[in-house]
Amino acid sequence: MTAPKRIGKQTVAFDNPPVIIGRASAVGPKEGKGPLKDYFDFIAEDTYFNDTSWEKAERKFFQTAAKLAIEKANLTPNDIHYFLAGDLLNQIISATYTARSLPIPYVGLYGACSTMYEGLALGAMLIDGGFADHVLAGVSSHYSTAERQFRFPTEQGVQRPLSSQWTVTGAAAMVLAAQGQGPRITHATIGKIVDLGVADATDMGAAMAPAAFDTIKQHLEDTGRDPGYYDLIVTGDLAKIGHRLVQALGEKQGLDLSKNYTDCGLLIYDTSQDVHAGGSGCACSGVVTAGFLLEEMQAGRYQKILGLGTGALHSPIASQQGETVPGIAHAVAIEF
Amino acid sequence: MTAPKRIGKQTVAFDNPPVIIGRASAVGPKEGKGPLKDYFDFIAEDTYFNDTSWEKAERKFFQTAAKLAIEKANLTPNDIHYFLAGDLLNQIISATYTARSLPIPYVGLYGACSTMYEGLALGAMLIDGGFADHVLAGVSSHYSTAERQFRFPTEQGVQRPLSSQWTVTGAAAMVLAAQGQGPRITHATIGKIVDLGVADATDMGAAMAPAAFDTIKQHLEDTGRDPGYYDLIVTGDLAKIGHRLVQALGEKQGLDLSKNYTDCGLLIYDTSQDVHAGGSGCACSGVVTAGFLLEEMQAGRYQKILGLGTGALHSPIASQQGETVPGIAHAVAIEF
Repeated sequence: MTAPKRIGKQTVAFDNPPVIIGRASAVGPKEGKGPLKDYFDFIAEDTYFNDTSWEKAERKFFQTAAKLAIEKANLTPNDIHYFLAGDLLNQIISATYTARSLPIPYVGLYGACSTMYEGLALGAMLIDGGFADHVLAGVSSHYSTAERQFRFPTEQGVQRPLSSQWTVTGAAAMVLAAQGQGPRITHATIGKIVDLGVADATDMGAAMAPAAFDTIKQHLEDTGRDPGYYDLIVTGDLAKIGHRLVQALGEKQGLDLSKNYTDCGLLIYDTSQDVHAGGSGCACSGVVTAGFLLEEMQAGRYQKILGLGTGALHSPIASQQGETVPGIAHAVAIEF
Repeated sequence: MTAPKRIGKQTVAFDNPPVIIGRASAVGPKEGKGPLKDYFDFIAEDTYFNDTSWEKAERKFFQTAAKLAIEKANLTPNDIHYFLAGDLLNQIISATYTARSLPIPYVGLYGACSTMYEGLALGAMLIDGGFADHVLAGVSSHYSTAERQFRFPTEQGVQRPLSSQWTVTGAAAMVLAAQGQGPRITHATIGKIVDLGVADATDMGAAMAPAAFDTIKQHLEDTGRDPGYYDLIVTGDLAKIGHRLVQALGEKQGLDLSKNYTDCGLLIYDTSQDVHAGGSGCACSGVVTAGFLLEEMQAGRYQKILGLGTGALHSPIASQQGETVPGIAHAVAIEF
């Protein structure tokens, strides 16, 4: 006997596709001046969010998005059976301190910037499997907490190479339900680690691109679809370099990704915003999906989206010990 | 409609309880001299495991346990649909670099020392929900990598207070399956964050005890069982202080935990081994469960165990910013 919901090698198809009944995004001032500014639920005036450290500010973004998503789903925290959450900080403190403020059983995740889609995929499985009525999935990231943890404290003023990306300051949360109105998660494809040897902490797009392509290709093979089945294929935070690499891998391997493939890291900032290669961070795919993509889906612009969370599992201590950066990508098919 | 597999507030009951068909433990020399030494599959001669850093050694323990568990299940890595894994290190590098060595879709978890049971609970849901035939759940920890990340580098020779615990060096992995022979996971109870204000990084047992008690109590309420239903209730790594606190909470709230309640952190070392309050770390509940508890279950000594992974979501940076340590505990009922 094979597990009944599996199709192909890495994909599952949901019997009763879980519905995204609530979603919210809270962002910082830079994101609030970008091209998607009108889509976000909340824009903070500064990156400290009236608190005393960037880490404390990050969890305020998370709490804001979580609270709003639950409200917009017309639920209370007590109606939610699981909170699946993570972020980029060591010991995922933004997620954990947000979980502490909510009376919801908590499942901590770490998938670097892929975490929003890791949560959506697992959340959909928990609902379709009959284990939960409602699941809250959420993520956060913050430019200044990420820079000082993974690269250099911003106060140091180290020059950023053009390959570097700008970590999105903000948080996103989505409520999944067994029933209701809204976009539905029909399939999930959990990715494998792909590591082609990129070791540069300022070029995460290149580190993630091979994993993103691997998961896109596997999803299409497993479902028997070609890229044109989707109105949009959108990766989480590959930005300029990674996006171009995925298209190039497509050309080499006979997958046409020239027409309907984009990346959240290309959508969230304007080229005038001095973000070099583009956006990144857990919140990049989070707020672009919760704020923009699903809004446009509900407005009728898109019917079928394949979204991917893309993670560069970069670790300063592993880098110092000579290691390269493993990449991962998880895909979720959303239809409305 | 309510999700059909839920019982009570936080517990799920499996329709076809997933079976643990393979399990392995790999430990360091100190654990290999302790009272459970004959139960472990592999004992390394030194904590460097013939490598050049403790971080690299830790992932070798993880790879060893993962490989052995798959072999003992009579499977190959290609038969496994998901690898659910985590560890204590920043960016869960031990799990990620182990995942890189395996061709298995990877779901990264962070639950501090609760991760083994977080993985068992989620893995059982993925199998019972029809999403996987086989799931590999695994964790690792290492005394020297944990000390330098969370407290002080061991080379510094800082004196350890008597409340401190000794992080288990080692790794455990278990293969869950929809069918087969072995102990079965019948229920899972995912815990909530409980934080009563402990801020001392050298007293993790006290930080976790309220969460452990909360999950034990909720599990028993949800299932309508009393503590005596189980041959053994065993927490992950509360050690002397936390174990005593859980018993005291039981006395106060009318739950008799004086007869059949123990803790993996009390079982793994001998009092002569200078570990102060006892064992801790992801691998503490991991290797004691995979090595000792399930072995004794299959030998007929126990029929019903309630196991709990207990996590102190301690963060050095959050502590420096004045925060206390959130606790969490996830319970899994195992019957044979």
